[in-house]
Amino acid sequence: MHVPTFIEAKRDGGTHTDTDLRAFVGGVARGEIPDYQAAAWLMAVFFRGLSDEETSVLTDAMAASGDRLDLQGLPHTVDKHSTGGVGDKTTLVLAPLLAACGATVAKVSGRGLGHTGGTVDKLESIPGYRTSLHDDAFLRQAREIGVVVAGQSGEMAPADKVLYALRDATATVASLPLIAASVMSKKLAGGAASIVLDVKVGRGAFMADAEQGRALGRTMRAIGRHSGRNVRVVLSGMEQPLGSAVGNALEVREAIAALDGGGPADLRELVVVLAGEVLEASGLDASPERIEAALDDGSARRRFDRWIEAQGGDLDAPDALALAPDRVEIAAPEDGVLADLDALRVGRAVRLLGGGRTRKDDRVDLGVGVELHAKIGDPVRRGEAVATVVHRDGRGLDEARAALMGAIRIAEHAEAPPLVLELLGADPT
Amino acid sequence: MHVPTFIEAKRDGGTHTDTDLRAFVGGVARGEIPDYQAAAWLMAVFFRGLSDEETSVLTDAMAASGDRLDLQGLPHTVDKHSTGGVGDKTTLVLAPLLAACGATVAKVSGRGLGHTGGTVDKLESIPGYRTSLHDDAFLRQAREIGVVVAGQSGEMAPADKVLYALRDATATVASLPLIAASVMSKKLAGGAASIVLDVKVGRGAFMADAEQGRALGRTMRAIGRHSGRNVRVVLSGMEQPLGSAVGNALEVREAIAALDGGGPADLRELVVVLAGEVLEASGLDASPERIEAALDDGSARRRFDRWIEAQGGDLDAPDALALAPDRVEIAAPEDGVLADLDALRVGRAVRLLGGGRTRKDDRVDLGVGVELHAKIGDPVRRGEAVATVVHRDGRGLDEARAALMGAIRIAEHAEAPPLVLELLGADPT
Repeated sequence: MHVPTFIEAKRDGGTHTDTDLRAFVGGVARGEIPDYQAAAWLMAVFFRGLSDEETSVLTDAMAASGDRLDLQGLPHTVDKHSTGGVGDKTTLVLAPLLAACGATVAKVSGRGLGHTGGTVDKLESIPGYRTSLHDDAFLRQAREIGVVVAGQSGEMAPADKVLYALRDATATVASLPLIAASVMSKKLAGGAASIVLDVKVGRGAFMADAEQGRALGRTMRAIGRHSGRNVRVVLSGMEQPLGSAVGNALEVREAIAALDGGGPADLRELVVVLAGEVLEASGLDASPERIEAALDDGSARRRFDRWIEAQGGDLDAPDALALAPDRVEIAAPEDGVLADLDALRVGRAVRLLGGGRTRKDDRVDLGVGVELHAKIGDPVRRGEAVATVVHRDGRGLDEARAALMGAIRIAEHAEAPPLVLELLGADPT
Repeated sequence: MHVPTFIEAKRDGGTHTDTDLRAFVGGVARGEIPDYQAAAWLMAVFFRGLSDEETSVLTDAMAASGDRLDLQGLPHTVDKHSTGGVGDKTTLVLAPLLAACGATVAKVSGRGLGHTGGTVDKLESIPGYRTSLHDDAFLRQAREIGVVVAGQSGEMAPADKVLYALRDATATVASLPLIAASVMSKKLAGGAASIVLDVKVGRGAFMADAEQGRALGRTMRAIGRHSGRNVRVVLSGMEQPLGSAVGNALEVREAIAALDGGGPADLRELVVVLAGEVLEASGLDASPERIEAALDDGSARRRFDRWIEAQGGDLDAPDALALAPDRVEIAAPEDGVLADLDALRVGRAVRLLGGGRTRKDDRVDLGVGVELHAKIGDPVRRGEAVATVVHRDGRGLDEARAALMGAIRIAEHAEAPPLVLELLGADPT
């Protein structure tokens, strides 16, 4: 293919053929098409967009550019993806919960950049937990326990890796079809038949408003249809952090509380909604009663324990889920109602403490974080703690404290913001 | 500077500061800013454009990225640029003509890609002509004879070189501010105080219509104002080749004929208009009578001879302006009037014969080309030659002949297209 002509077609608002798009993605993945041509194409896509059909072909070609998990033969394979938020530990609860409800969660998860580590980092706060599994062991565990979560071994969607890095460097991240293709290429390579996407909306999230989130969700659903996957989309609010714990070991602790039928109400609410959507898409009993029962009767928790044990994790080890030793409380500056708890600033505070990554090779301190004692709408009294900072020897403490103080606002009145904003439901066609 | 933020600003329709633009161009020229970021920025500029102020700063920064000719102290320094056309040998006539009229033409010229070679290639059809001169010799010749034309020694506007190559590979060539900056960066580095730009319009040219050509011309004039240069713009038609000769040695022969007061009428007309514009801009006598007198009284021709001699060229050598030995005539297929003589196809025919470059390292055959015996509007008779192909052992002959046949159309009536379309005149401000 003649790449300048391909770029020119998109530049002028044209539609790519399947053949051209696949040749382009393949060329990018193999390093045959230089970065500068890919970058120019990305910017042309930023301005001109991609049709649902083009986006689907792009996604499929990206998924086909590397290794794919073959989950054929496993019952009710499901997957979940969140577009990222602060304090989002839903995967840790959802995976064993779905397994307890009859689905199979066989998931490859990344480390990623962010306010805290990724799911794989969080699991490493359990001593002995193996994130690296051979294919055989991975599939056997999926079949026997219904849940397995490992780090990437081979290279899934390498074309996405190249394009993602370029987008970051060329101001072309904020393009809906490119975001949708990036997320869905990894989901398609992940092999699950049914997928629920938790699209976060709000200040602490990638999508600033519900309209954008809805458009992204619809595009990802269309990709699912094109690829024979059942995709459900949940729009959820991310004005404030999810739950009360932000930080790696802290979040695993909170997830375990939810699996024991407790934990924060918002975390449980979101988990139940996400589970319901993907269980329904998968043809399983999706009633809230069924799902809540699995949280309350210990079956989800038992599934969690079997999963962690199967991957070598020891929850009874002395240093399991170890927290950093030092504490500082953030006190409310006046009486009133907590009117703001800016998710982004709370997240930044945790990263400043060492709990997240700015660069790919940063080490994450799994023991630090922030515990929230009030959420938006809760009454607070002057001098009482609204949050506790869990730090290590004061590392990053001053900046983290400043970020947290900036995250908090107290007013006379305030209401809790809605959590579940919208379910896009099954694909209409 | 944070390059993604810089790209994002242009992506969102913002205006760059001088400081940012200069830092960006410098980073590109030094290879510190990677190609993929430059490519994304170029595509953002394609969509969002650049203000005249931004274009001027970009151009100045590109000119400042490499060597600059210092022509201070030379009288009435003038330069000319053509946006490219078929059969355009005006520089060869104009340079000595302007010198004969009191101006100084000290010009560095490239080889370039195209239907024929560049001016420097054409001059090499004169045995002994040295295209490589030391700075001292270059300036001495400019002062003594008023005309010197050499190839590039140092690196002028290296930022343009990088950006031009990227534009070619990323479908971002057709952006008016980028075209204007590319042309003018080399002119600014070339150091002349007054510049005439021959913007070709029509099928055989880069600008498809007069409106586009006018917009380009105005942008280049604004760059000139910003940089303290007098810039004049002439829009000229390029529906058919200029003059009757297309090919390197053939064109030098035709240029000499014009310097002797003869040659094709259209070539002489354009040369007189271009000379008038730039002489006026330079504060010299610019009347058509003065200019035509220099062509008719031998003074322009004498200046040409002194110039060529000073650079070692021997017009009396046996192989001076040698043509390829073989000839084929293209006959009119019917009686009528020549209604079309597609410049682009004639140009392609010459390139197919070996007379032009497709790649930078192609060798140019200076002896081949096409002689036209009729121009649009001329009567033709069936079987009579409308063109003669000058070829070497049949190399490329079949394809060239096919291209020429496709270039020609005969009708009952046709009028000669206008040559000089518009003079943009002095800058209004």
